[in-house]
Amino acid sequence: MAAHYQASLSGVFRRRLRAIVGERGLLSARADRTVYECDGYTLERSVPELVVLPETTEQVAGVVRAAAQAGVPFVPRGAGTGLSGGCLPAPAPLMVCVSRMRRIRALNLANRRAVVEAGVVNAAVSRAVQAAGLQYVPDPSSQNACTIGGNVAENSGGPHTLKYGVTTNHLLGVELVLPDGEVMELGDAIEDTLGYDLTGVACGSEGTFGIVTAATLRLEPLPEGVTTMLAVFETVADATTTVSRIIASGIVPAALEMMDRTIVEAVEAAYHFGFPTDAGAILIVEIDGPAAGLPALAARVTEICRASGARSVRIAADEAERAALWKSRKRAFGAVGRLAPSYCTQDGVVPRTRLPEILARIEEIGARHRLRIGNVFHAGDGNIHPIILYDERDRDQVVRVLEAGREILAACVALGGSVTGEHGIGVEKMRELGLLFGGDDLALMRRVRAVFDPAGRANPGKIFPTPGGCVEQRAPRRQAAV
Amino acid sequence: MAAHYQASLSGVFRRRLRAIVGERGLLSARADRTVYECDGYTLERSVPELVVLPETTEQVAGVVRAAAQAGVPFVPRGAGTGLSGGCLPAPAPLMVCVSRMRRIRALNLANRRAVVEAGVVNAAVSRAVQAAGLQYVPDPSSQNACTIGGNVAENSGGPHTLKYGVTTNHLLGVELVLPDGEVMELGDAIEDTLGYDLTGVACGSEGTFGIVTAATLRLEPLPEGVTTMLAVFETVADATTTVSRIIASGIVPAALEMMDRTIVEAVEAAYHFGFPTDAGAILIVEIDGPAAGLPALAARVTEICRASGARSVRIAADEAERAALWKSRKRAFGAVGRLAPSYCTQDGVVPRTRLPEILARIEEIGARHRLRIGNVFHAGDGNIHPIILYDERDRDQVVRVLEAGREILAACVALGGSVTGEHGIGVEKMRELGLLFGGDDLALMRRVRAVFDPAGRANPGKIFPTPGGCVEQRAPRRQAAV
Repeated sequence: MAAHYQASLSGVFRRRLRAIVGERGLLSARADRTVYECDGYTLERSVPELVVLPETTEQVAGVVRAAAQAGVPFVPRGAGTGLSGGCLPAPAPLMVCVSRMRRIRALNLANRRAVVEAGVVNAAVSRAVQAAGLQYVPDPSSQNACTIGGNVAENSGGPHTLKYGVTTNHLLGVELVLPDGEVMELGDAIEDTLGYDLTGVACGSEGTFGIVTAATLRLEPLPEGVTTMLAVFETVADATTTVSRIIASGIVPAALEMMDRTIVEAVEAAYHFGFPTDAGAILIVEIDGPAAGLPALAARVTEICRASGARSVRIAADEAERAALWKSRKRAFGAVGRLAPSYCTQDGVVPRTRLPEILARIEEIGARHRLRIGNVFHAGDGNIHPIILYDERDRDQVVRVLEAGREILAACVALGGSVTGEHGIGVEKMRELGLLFGGDDLALMRRVRAVFDPAGRANPGKIFPTPGGCVEQRAPRRQAAV
Repeated sequence: MAAHYQASLSGVFRRRLRAIVGERGLLSARADRTVYECDGYTLERSVPELVVLPETTEQVAGVVRAAAQAGVPFVPRGAGTGLSGGCLPAPAPLMVCVSRMRRIRALNLANRRAVVEAGVVNAAVSRAVQAAGLQYVPDPSSQNACTIGGNVAENSGGPHTLKYGVTTNHLLGVELVLPDGEVMELGDAIEDTLGYDLTGVACGSEGTFGIVTAATLRLEPLPEGVTTMLAVFETVADATTTVSRIIASGIVPAALEMMDRTIVEAVEAAYHFGFPTDAGAILIVEIDGPAAGLPALAARVTEICRASGARSVRIAADEAERAALWKSRKRAFGAVGRLAPSYCTQDGVVPRTRLPEILARIEEIGARHRLRIGNVFHAGDGNIHPIILYDERDRDQVVRVLEAGREILAACVALGGSVTGEHGIGVEKMRELGLLFGGDDLALMRRVRAVFDPAGRANPGKIFPTPGGCVEQRAPRRQAAV
């Protein structure tokens, strides 16, 4: 069974890979490999036996073909910014990292599409087309580091998902190296899908179909005007009620983000934006579209915020202030590092009308487990991101973090929601799949996976819970040193 | 092989189905069944041996389970408005028609979703939520007849696809009766997909995964303001150039539709809207969004139209005029019936910058085959709909129609496009799949299909070309009488 591959990689196999990617495309020294022991989900770690860094699709195909012939499982990786352990290199000994595949292969501005390699950083796509008045919309908080390949694997979202949809809504096609080394083109460069939507099902498959080496992306025009607003509330409940009321009014903001007091304090301590640290919560509301329509829309948003108890509502006066607001939001995760040695970002979804309830539940769960939990999230989507603060040197705390995380996800499901909004399943959420899927559902998904990866060698041990072994698997594989 | 099922349905099998759906749920008299011999693609016809009209998911599951046990292939059908023969009942003797499953099961207005049965008519969804300021966006021209089940099967588009996306972009989940009779729920009622996006791959699978019995739909707020404009051009080339220029300017119209002189003449003869029948082409441009932004946007569109040679640009003065414009567009296909005894609507896509080229090619192809071809299409998407006029009593004309259609699709592919934008493959486009897909691609798709339908009994003889038998298959199965 691939999932239980234990053998060391042979010298012959290593030499074969070296012949494909060259000396500089291979990391075998322990010190070099340790960097790759986890992604942003740090509760489990495992150092890969070998890391290869191919620079072309041909090299990826060559490496994967060699792995197929040797029966070696592999784990694909982009920038390693994932948050659910999707590129945890266990039990796959071979890591194939596409971060050196950084070419933008083609830009077709008139028809608004770009073909980029998997290692291209998300924000680099928008930068490349900005002068033409275009953008690539999906904007994960890690957009200055995360890669398009990883975005496709995780079907990443971001603040602007609310209005514009997640990665799959902006993906026209992918170049996929199947686990037998064959290079497939799924989808195409035009808007409409012909035949089954294999691009769609590959998006979000977390590396279990093979390795995405390039993607054809849809570009969107930059909106003519953008207005970004900051509303300050005394309580989280007032802020989430406001979210429901804005949406109910028929306004579709480009983004609608909430940060609670814990997060505001952390952000303020790190960056000194001048946020009120005594407020219960703040909302960042962004509206976009034809410039002439924005003042009236901003006035309506202001009115709704005030009617829902906002202490203050402020419209960013200029681009600098606007950029500062977004910087605060996008760096919130990093700023949390000031509050505790470790943190674990959860990812759940509830119907957006249930936000007040889930936040009350999170508070109660945190108190019961003696854990501080901050909240920063895509409120308009009902996509919550409780950040659980802890110290990973304290084994008991780690156990409580895992337990609290599980309880939060179960509460999301009980409120009609789901256990992941945008971070994927990885190793973190395997057990929670059972909260939403029965055996038949999982069997169907496994059969779909087998179409692409019959031998189960592409990112084994992810997504699908191992029967009977879930609890043990969930315990940290290695207690990390700080 | 299911695809070559020839046996007649047994008396035992018929009695079993009658016990499930009752006497009124079964059509066995030839006269009743003849209605079901084709959909909107009339070049091929075949009367089903038996039509069942279940009213509940349980009945569908019972019928499908009985068919599985008897080894009988089946073809699902909604309203039969499809345009590629997706519900042509050959070679499946049993048709399962969901048009009596018309319940709206649940409306959740606060979270903007609806759960509707497969037989609910598209336009009925928007009507049901209109008072709450909401709509279901995808709007095929047949929206007053076509059903949600059929929309899901074909991943239908419509004029507003340009800004808002096709069916798959508004579909959160489906209830699917697998070919063994098992009822699966794919996706869920919240925004984000957990695990593989099986809803996405089921959408557009044209009944080859089983029978969709219900769908969870995303609702969208009605835009605050809508402005609809009519621009009249001397030539098709001027109109298509205008399309490119509007898009290039960064404006994303809600819809951008073109009709050429042939279509305008037909529409005018049928409905007397007062369109100029001497114009080369007209464009319907619709913009929507916050009301305050629309006048400036309309002025920009007007300016672009005039700069590209528009003879006149007129803004619909009121809702009545706006409704009339859309009525003209949506009834264009019907109006064409005045010009010839029969017509065949083609469906292709090109990158929108190639519209002038493809339209020139269509004109040339029509002239060479001595066929009159009208054009009415979603110009903003590059999704063309040449309507080939003919007389189906004339065998030679039928052959030329088929040949011209094939040449148009090949020309789309040569220009970097595709062979179907929104009508699906059905039986009509099976051969053309080979223009875009190699054997490996088709093998992968067949394996995906086998996950859902291992025995190949769900809508056999669709999508996938039968090796070696394409040309024969393409000839009309039965020359229709008028």
